[in-house]
Amino acid sequence: GFVPFKQLISEMDQVSDDLIAVSLAIVVDVGDAPRIEDQRFKMAQCVFKIDHHIPVYDFGHHAWIDTDALAVSLMIARFVRLYHMKLTPMGANALALGLITDSGRFLFGQVTGETFSLMSDLIGFGATLPDIYRILYEKTFEQMAFQSYVYQHYETNDAGLIYVILTSDELKNLGITAERASSKVNLLAQVKNYHIWTFFAESAEGYRCEIRSDGIDIQAVASKFGGGGHQQASGCLLKSKTLIPNVIDELVIKLREHA
Amino acid sequence: GFVPFKQLISEMDQVSDDLIAVSLAIVVDVGDAPRIEDQRFKMAQCVFKIDHHIPVYDFGHHAWIDTDALAVSLMIARFVRLYHMKLTPMGANALALGLITDSGRFLFGQVTGETFSLMSDLIGFGATLPDIYRILYEKTFEQMAFQSYVYQHYETNDAGLIYVILTSDELKNLGITAERASSKVNLLAQVKNYHIWTFFAESAEGYRCEIRSDGIDIQAVASKFGGGGHQQASGCLLKSKTLIPNVIDELVIKLREHA
Repeated sequence: GFVPFKQLISEMDQVSDDLIAVSLAIVVDVGDAPRIEDQRFKMAQCVFKIDHHIPVYDFGHHAWIDTDALAVSLMIARFVRLYHMKLTPMGANALALGLITDSGRFLFGQVTGETFSLMSDLIGFGATLPDIYRILYEKTFEQMAFQSYVYQHYETNDAGLIYVILTSDELKNLGITAERASSKVNLLAQVKNYHIWTFFAESAEGYRCEIRSDGIDIQAVASKFGGGGHQQASGCLLKSKTLIPNVIDELVIKLREHA
Repeated sequence: GFVPFKQLISEMDQVSDDLIAVSLAIVVDVGDAPRIEDQRFKMAQCVFKIDHHIPVYDFGHHAWIDTDALAVSLMIARFVRLYHMKLTPMGANALALGLITDSGRFLFGQVTGETFSLMSDLIGFGATLPDIYRILYEKTFEQMAFQSYVYQHYETNDAGLIYVILTSDELKNLGITAERASSKVNLLAQVKNYHIWTFFAESAEGYRCEIRSDGIDIQAVASKFGGGGHQQASGCLLKSKTLIPNVIDELVIKLREHA
């Protein structure tokens, strides 16, 4: 993932195939088996999935899926509270990191009183917000230049769509990868009168497309182009630039339906 | 203030001089009597101050001051909890608004488990985060242009200072007031290796200077130039542009002391 996890938590353990073969694999926060980082999960005796994404297809033997949950971290923090369990500071930091990133630092619509209450639990277990924030939010001059660029090159559609198309040449000049660039889609969030915001960033495989909305369900549009995600936060990979107008058309239809 | 309070809470009540003369005035969140919006507080039978700023000079008959508190809203939310009081949704929104703005949406160093726990209480009383966020964070094209401008025109000092100087001509072109511009000082927060960030924005009275730090106490520097505030968030008004290098020198001295 794009969160520098090891800076905050630790390096991943190296686990042998033999150990995996006698283990329970718990797979978290991924709806789609090919996206699992260590594909050896398939060798485990039993696979248990904990997730909040809209399932793309099923895998594993057991699953705990709550598509209404803000974050898998929140589901686990709930579980910890329910069973009066304790967390180490490292565990609390991992869950806090998930809660903060999946909620846009307590910004998104699914944040409730329970979110704050569970966050308070995590701090009680030793989660250190300054460490998390320093890693998540530290700005570099390159990032500031990128943000400035986006704010000078966005395009708009009167239906309520705001978007930016970033070619690989532009990204190269700005010193940012397509993956990192598209993760910044919320730079175009919360613009007055614009209810869907989208980044199209060119990579070797095509155009990475990230779509967000403040209420309109855009997951179906991402699915139509081979992607998926959440109702208000989805993405897909477009094989060709010629598909961009098609995505825009579909999003404009969604906007007009909700106008 | 710059928060569109009345959009969220309501209009201020119109209170007669006669009513004030038989009333207790509770003054919140202001360390400095001249900055109180309705100066008729002086006519009240008794003046009670609740504040978290470093006192500039005393006023009022009684005071509850906690300079360690993140926000006066937090002090009041604590009081509500301690005495098992209840809040209306309007009251809860007012306190939540204060907690969110004074904490930079749960970003700043003073945020603790209690902050989140009290926020959970406020949501329980009916605070509506989406309403608060919509008002606080709605972006306009003008704001995006301003941000872009700042990210192209900042200056840096190797000691760890990053700042921008905005003349009244520039602000006029960008369509933003000096007050509003200087309230955006945190655009330059959390830049890697830069521990103090400052906006100088020209107004009719001189240069509004807002100073923030990620740990270094800069309140004394603001005081030296006739201002004040908090240890890591202070401001002052400079009568002349020629004072800007002096402020920069003082801040660089602070940075070198802490290097």
